Amino acid sequence: MENKEPLIITDKDDMRRWSRSARAQGKIVGFIPTMGYLHEGHLSLVQECKQHSNLTVVSIYVNPGQFSPNEDLSTYPSDFIGDINKLKNKADGVDVVFHPKDLYDYGKHDGVVNARRNDLEEGKVVSCVENSGQGHETWVRVERLEKGLCGSSRPVFFRGVATIVTKLFNIVEPDVAVFGKKDYQQWRIIERMVRDLDFGIKIIGAELLRDPDGLAKSSRNVHLSPEQRKKIVDQESLEVLEEIKSPAVFCIAAWFGNVRLLDNMEIVV
Amino acid sequence: MENKEPLIITDKDDMRRWSRSARAQGKIVGFIPTMGYLHEGHLSLVQECKQHSNLTVVSIYVNPGQFSPNEDLSTYPSDFIGDINKLKNKADGVDVVFHPKDLYDYGKHDGVVNARRNDLEEGKVVSCVENSGQGHETWVRVERLEKGLCGSSRPVFFRGVATIVTKLFNIVEPDVAVFGKKDYQQWRIIERMVRDLDFGIKIIGAELLRDPDGLAKSSRNVHLSPEQRKKIVDQESLEVLEEIKSPAVFCIAAWFGNVRLLDNMEIVV
Repeated sequence: MENKEPLIITDKDDMRRWSRSARAQGKIVGFIPTMGYLHEGHLSLVQECKQHSNLTVVSIYVNPGQFSPNEDLSTYPSDFIGDINKLKNKADGVDVVFHPKDLYDYGKHDGVVNARRNDLEEGKVVSCVENSGQGHETWVRVERLEKGLCGSSRPVFFRGVATIVTKLFNIVEPDVAVFGKKDYQQWRIIERMVRDLDFGIKIIGAELLRDPDGLAKSSRNVHLSPEQRKKIVDQESLEVLEEIKSPAVFCIAAWFGNVRLLDNMEIVV
Repeated sequence: MENKEPLIITDKDDMRRWSRSARAQGKIVGFIPTMGYLHEGHLSLVQECKQHSNLTVVSIYVNPGQFSPNEDLSTYPSDFIGDINKLKNKADGVDVVFHPKDLYDYGKHDGVVNARRNDLEEGKVVSCVENSGQGHETWVRVERLEKGLCGSSRPVFFRGVATIVTKLFNIVEPDVAVFGKKDYQQWRIIERMVRDLDFGIKIIGAELLRDPDGLAKSSRNVHLSPEQRKKIVDQESLEVLEEIKSPAVFCIAAWFGNVRLLDNMEIVV
């Protein structure tokens, strides 16, 4: 059915109830976690997901657990109404949009915020969640994979991603979940986590989409001026290796002005 | 039905399939994770579980992920046939015993064991799983609760417990799980983990059982001589507090000879 209106669920118990009911009827539930401000890249994940499932759930939730207090949580772009319209008009609709208000317990604030600030100053890993109080304290870490590439400049990031994906998996209880290979390290971390923790969920890595000028699609691209877009693209260069012995992937992450961008290319020899 | 023979499942996919089939028929699946060598304490958890579920799964699996390489993994007692008989005769049977051979990916061994030994020597947290290769790397940590009490002397332990319980939850997919309050810190950590990670599972804490001489029941008690049993019990003493303002719990953990013992008492004022 085209242009169908998704059911919008904000409560996690309602979400789990919907999913259990669907699965009890033999439906295969597919899931695409997003932070919203959807673009063609996300919509292509929805299309991919539909190939593997009977029902599709998209979550829209900007996860404070993967931002450190000095990162761009407050300026992360959002457009919920626009997102719903895109899902209806460009992705032929989805069944559910899961849009929780907040998924963390922030605990008590008194005296704790300062304690956490001290942690931060001592270089410990602290996200926006922990900086706000003494609540949530359980974190999932994929210890080797989280250290490479982006992990070194963003120690909070992959811990936060693995944890929110675990939470969303436990709430949505999907059969299949789709992740974009644009976020290559993230995709590999989720794959590894699902294997190590025995989640009964099939993970699908979807190829990345590029804009006509070659820039990989990203919600953060909205912050780029036309001049910046051009310059970035021009500057893309990959190091020349003497020899590539096994399947490899080139990954690029760069700060450009105030915008952090990712791109990658898989090489099979 | 009394004395019924449990179905013994060793494969994790078979386990998940059984559970999904049971739940699809509207059954409430209860779960008790154990490391085997069952005693009356475990059997009381089974009885407790039956109050909350239609079907009961007991797992018997000695988890290498919660032992550090210098702890007593190799001497941990086991008696699988005896365990099955106890479940049949003393707990009126259970539906499934999940008894996997191993739940970890140990990866490659070449050159890595030494690297992990170096980690160990540098005081990093390393379990028997990591000491054996470069496989499993995803760990669940309940960061504040794991540090108190037993956590300081056994840094590997609660990380290993939280991780194996996550794995078992994802394989068994129960509705209800029962943990003994004998392992008080463990029970609290699991409760916190389930809340923080949004597992759709109800956690029940069961009161601890004592032997007639007052010793809390434990699989490790088998290592104690009659003289040691007496001496322990005699030595139990709780510190006198000036004032107790909120519900509190006294926890004791002590090495006695080669045996590590736990006990605790809840105080409600």
